[in-house]
Amino acid sequence: MKEVMTFIRANKVNDTKTALANAGFPAFLCRPCLGRGKNHMDSNLLKIVLGTGELPLSDVGESMTEGTRLIPKRFFTLIINDDEVDLAVKTIIKANQTGNPGDGRIFILPINESYVVRTGENIV
Amino acid sequence: MKEVMTFIRANKVNDTKTALANAGFPAFLCRPCLGRGKNHMDSNLLKIVLGTGELPLSDVGESMTEGTRLIPKRFFTLIINDDEVDLAVKTIIKANQTGNPGDGRIFILPINESYVVRTGENIV
Amino acid sequence: MKEVMTFIRANKVNDTKTALANAGFPAFLCRPCLGRGKNHMDSNLLKIVLGTGELPLSDVGESMTEGTRLIPKRFFTLIINDDEVDLAVKTIIKANQTGNPGDGRIFILPINESYVVRTGENIV
Repeated sequence: MKEVMTFIRANKVNDTKTALANAGFPAFLCRPCLGRGKNHMDSNLLKIVLGTGELPLSDVGESMTEGTRLIPKRFFTLIINDDEVDLAVKTIIKANQTGNPGDGRIFILPINESYVVRTGENIV
Repeated sequence: MKEVMTFIRANKVNDTKTALANAGFPAFLCRPCLGRGKNHMDSNLLKIVLGTGELPLSDVGESMTEGTRLIPKRFFTLIINDDEVDLAVKTIIKANQTGNPGDGRIFILPINESYVVRTGENIV
Repeated sequence: MKEVMTFIRANKVNDTKTALANAGFPAFLCRPCLGRGKNHMDSNLLKIVLGTGELPLSDVGESMTEGTRLIPKRFFTLIINDDEVDLAVKTIIKANQTGNPGDGRIFILPINESYVVRTGENIV
């Protein structure tokens, strides 16, 4: 089995839930989190947004370009069979791909064992 | 070492904490999450609950049987030695098993390395 | 790739964010969680705090020394290349080490695959 760990935009939760359920993945969990990716905000763009190309970067600007500002994201976890990973990844990408930075990331982790609490059964 | 990742009912947190502490696992963390398992609500049961066997499934009924409704759950993480996994799994199952769907799931993940921040020591 | 999973004090989030960004790790996520480590509060110390060495441990004292009280912590996740793990671990330890119990723990987990949602690319 594998854990599919996914970080997506907060406004894509419903699309992702529906897409996963339709693709045959009804079981998952979702949590809010704060995060950021590797791309710093472009400081030239920032100057334009701030209404000037002149100003040296202010404290505000600096804090926005530094790696310290975190953005509310949503964190999805699916635990699925090895042969389902490809379909799950494609489903998540299709539901979340806007082409803009911040679309999210998907990571696949190994799961050694899996138990159902109701039955006590080890299902791996 | 192993990570023991567990999803349980929100009302089982105290029982689980006590059971784990009594079994010699005082160190763990707990977070709220939203999730659901594989079982869809039975649509016949739903018709009975809604007071009619006639009604075609309404929007409400449909949304309840679809895989898109998430339930508040609790997420436990334990990081323990390989030879402690069996006891931890049995302890969690015993504290959470009601025999009804939704009792939860336990997943075991590999941990490659483990550091204590206070001492900087790598304890694996 | 590796997942670096870290539990730290809630008041160390800003220091950790800044230290990671300065060390070249701008991408991470942060979540609140409740947790506790292995060390029970010393019951003798507790008697002093409660103002008496005589009193048998009251319900309050017992609940404080038992393993059932959870402390608000922060949970950081970084996903980085294998050769960056050493630097990340050192950076986190340096930013969080006070020398007192509760400084936190760092765990390294394997990541099998990694996808960028924006491009659909598998970058491992």
